[in-house]
Amino acid sequence: MLNRVRSAVAHLVSSGGAPPPRPKSPDLPNAASAPPAAAPEAPRSPPAKAGSGSATPAKAVETRASFSRPTFLQLSPGGLRRADDHAGRAVQSPPDTGRRLPWSTGYAEVINAGKSRHNEDQACCEVVYVEGRRSVTGAPRELSRGQQGLCFYYWGLFDGHAGGGAAEMASRLLHRHIREQLKDLVDILQDPSPPPLCLPTTPGTPDSSDPSHLLGPQSCWSSQKEVTHESLVVGAIENAFQLMDEQMARERRGHQVEGGCCALVVVYLLGKVYVANAGDSRAIIVRNGEIIPMSREFTPETERQRLQLLGFLKPELLGSEFTHLEFPRRVLPKELGQRMLYRDQNMTGWAYKKIELEDLRFPLVCGEGKKARVMATIGVTRGLGDHNLKVCSSTLPIKPFLSCFPEVRVYDLTQYEHCPDDVLVLGTDGLWDVTTDYEVAATVDRVLSAYEPNDHSRYTALAQALVLGARGTPRDRGWRLPNNKLGSGDDISVFVIPLGGPGSYS
Amino acid sequence: MLNRVRSAVAHLVSSGGAPPPRPKSPDLPNAASAPPAAAPEAPRSPPAKAGSGSATPAKAVETRASFSRPTFLQLSPGGLRRADDHAGRAVQSPPDTGRRLPWSTGYAEVINAGKSRHNEDQACCEVVYVEGRRSVTGAPRELSRGQQGLCFYYWGLFDGHAGGGAAEMASRLLHRHIREQLKDLVDILQDPSPPPLCLPTTPGTPDSSDPSHLLGPQSCWSSQKEVTHESLVVGAIENAFQLMDEQMARERRGHQVEGGCCALVVVYLLGKVYVANAGDSRAIIVRNGEIIPMSREFTPETERQRLQLLGFLKPELLGSEFTHLEFPRRVLPKELGQRMLYRDQNMTGWAYKKIELEDLRFPLVCGEGKKARVMATIGVTRGLGDHNLKVCSSTLPIKPFLSCFPEVRVYDLTQYEHCPDDVLVLGTDGLWDVTTDYEVAATVDRVLSAYEPNDHSRYTALAQALVLGARGTPRDRGWRLPNNKLGSGDDISVFVIPLGGPGSYS
Repeated sequence: MLNRVRSAVAHLVSSGGAPPPRPKSPDLPNAASAPPAAAPEAPRSPPAKAGSGSATPAKAVETRASFSRPTFLQLSPGGLRRADDHAGRAVQSPPDTGRRLPWSTGYAEVINAGKSRHNEDQACCEVVYVEGRRSVTGAPRELSRGQQGLCFYYWGLFDGHAGGGAAEMASRLLHRHIREQLKDLVDILQDPSPPPLCLPTTPGTPDSSDPSHLLGPQSCWSSQKEVTHESLVVGAIENAFQLMDEQMARERRGHQVEGGCCALVVVYLLGKVYVANAGDSRAIIVRNGEIIPMSREFTPETERQRLQLLGFLKPELLGSEFTHLEFPRRVLPKELGQRMLYRDQNMTGWAYKKIELEDLRFPLVCGEGKKARVMATIGVTRGLGDHNLKVCSSTLPIKPFLSCFPEVRVYDLTQYEHCPDDVLVLGTDGLWDVTTDYEVAATVDRVLSAYEPNDHSRYTALAQALVLGARGTPRDRGWRLPNNKLGSGDDISVFVIPLGGPGSYS
Repeated sequence: MLNRVRSAVAHLVSSGGAPPPRPKSPDLPNAASAPPAAAPEAPRSPPAKAGSGSATPAKAVETRASFSRPTFLQLSPGGLRRADDHAGRAVQSPPDTGRRLPWSTGYAEVINAGKSRHNEDQACCEVVYVEGRRSVTGAPRELSRGQQGLCFYYWGLFDGHAGGGAAEMASRLLHRHIREQLKDLVDILQDPSPPPLCLPTTPGTPDSSDPSHLLGPQSCWSSQKEVTHESLVVGAIENAFQLMDEQMARERRGHQVEGGCCALVVVYLLGKVYVANAGDSRAIIVRNGEIIPMSREFTPETERQRLQLLGFLKPELLGSEFTHLEFPRRVLPKELGQRMLYRDQNMTGWAYKKIELEDLRFPLVCGEGKKARVMATIGVTRGLGDHNLKVCSSTLPIKPFLSCFPEVRVYDLTQYEHCPDDVLVLGTDGLWDVTTDYEVAATVDRVLSAYEPNDHSRYTALAQALVLGARGTPRDRGWRLPNNKLGSGDDISVFVIPLGGPGSYS
């Protein structure tokens, strides 16, 4: 997420190299929050107080400092220091000797080249069991037909900005929110009949889905809409993102959840892969050499019209500082009365307009590519957190323009017989800023063909190769790729999920 | 547009078989309106007073009644009566003997099976000359480098609903609005250098596009955005749609422009084809048998989230009658407190929510497919007009939810060597309701291969075949297709534009 939040917001987070304020037990949501009646999970890799390396795992939660890495990396204090070294930028992966990640998933990460104190990416990989919710009386729901709970597989990449707190919190809790949302659906998802449109609260009350009950003569209601099981899972993931974001908003008051994060999440449930993306990370499937995009990026450029529409409909969100119109460059006071190119929220093309006084305000959306910004501040438009983010030298909040909702794409794993070389690749923008989809597909082919199909380490080797390929090697005062272009100086994190590999997921 | 506006709005237009109120010279916009300093154009096909057939062409504008057909059909009063006959549903095309349409364009249309008094589709096909605008002093603009004006080719299909006034007006005036928007661009579009970002008003004032003039340290402004010639044409078309809609809003007060219309417009200019669509008409290119979609439909289903977001942000637009939430069927009062599936504006999936009192309101968006409606009333969400449209038995206006902006797709005609069988097909929903893209492509192949490549009549024959194939033949108390399914009872209009045919457009 390097460079995606302008230095303009530096006053919001701790300055320079000092560690940001320590979040006060942000893993303990308040009573109103849905998920965490959950039992405490294993602590993450021991946090390092910058430069000390002495941390007591048993006290991990209490002494959580500014920096932690995913538990599955099983980093020792010394390993954590090496992972935090901007000079060496050693690539980190789970140890060969430890417990494999579910599905033999490959993972690798590397810290940035010095642009932020710590690695602000976070990751999570879990198998999550969902027990059906019981009614308030404690009796199993009457819809229950003796089914067991559900398991889902979960992978998450969280690319933090303006501090690591939001990414760290999301990596610990988002899958619990998803579990909570799925609890109501345990029976319904395992019942092949269409989901009931209405759930009675009183046992024995029939579902009133009979169309003959419909009110009035409205022809558009002559039939009820069919809702699929798949769309219930999508809805559960969408609402989990929102609840995660709301939890951050509540806890920021007490605990200072600093910053925000992009979230790219994969859920495997009942034969289908759900890829949920809010931000500028990316997921692609490489299948038999073919590239299947599984996400798109949400930036001021791709979401320009949504942002402008909001500014147009709610001008109070722009204060007196911004205009919802877009201009190809800053309008100068001396140009008042001249005609300049502009785009309104309904336009994809450009036209000339006469410059008026209001047009001298700063545009809500400006810049191009990696330099595009909302309110001159942030370069991603979806994600979690950022509740404290304000326009530089102003009290104007930016959060109303950011969306916490992911776009969810679904891939049916049963519709195709996958071979061990078919993979789903997730990467933060550190990977994609310097690597095309085609280059990733070529690396998939090159690395996997060098390993036996049943060698579990091949996916980790692939993740490492992708991270290394994006990082480059130190040369000519910078990290450089073989073609001598600059490698990514950002944090880089990559999951490689085998779709037909040695993982047993049937 | 049959069935796309519920009978609920019948009170807005003239009832039963009586002609709607006569528009008072709607072709003469008021002084504030941009385009029509234009010379009056040739009158359209003589209007028929229903059942009379006696109309004086010379008085066409003054005596415009409820019904006219495109001028290029060159219909006699008797021909107009036949075109208006719901029982025979004779397919209409320009006469073989008359002047060919530009580019040897094929056209055919047929009236509906009785659902509205007259054919509410309208069409226009023109070659339009654009003269560069002169400065207020009458001197040529200083940017002018001796270039000539520009010509563009223009095709428009307008599918009216709740009356024919808006479609008729758009078919007469929209291309003039486009011409007006292009007047400022005549020199710029013919100059190969990038368009100036700012146009000075005082002769001799340089364009201040030099980035060194930029204010402030904002890194997102470190470079100016490059704007293409193509995006200027897109912007001109978008603004022309808006100005057309505003003109309808103004004139409705004096002249009762009844109803609204979908608009599908094609502009050919300087080697590129611009397809602008607002509504549920459709355009596809069939090229060497391959189908290239050139538009998408805008309906309550495809625009659900835009509509819901607007209702969420501006709840006053929903009155006390509607909720912005979507439910899969009407919520019953007795279900208060139960949990029902819903979708909010940010969701593509579904989830359960506890029914509260507000959820008993009618949903802003309901129904599926052709039965989907906004505010239980209208089945298309973009187009022109509809300024008088109200919710049934209510004063709540629907127009705020409708967008007059088209989506514009661009096809570069110079990037591919087209053969005479490559065509762009435009059709109103009467065609597409019963015909797939593939069936259209098959008909293109079948009909064109039966004609010599240089036979100009082949494109008209193709348009006729497409209209006939969608209309079917009278059998078993209805219009039926060969497979015995019902044909379209709607108005059907089709343009076939040859991309590499005998038309000379180089």
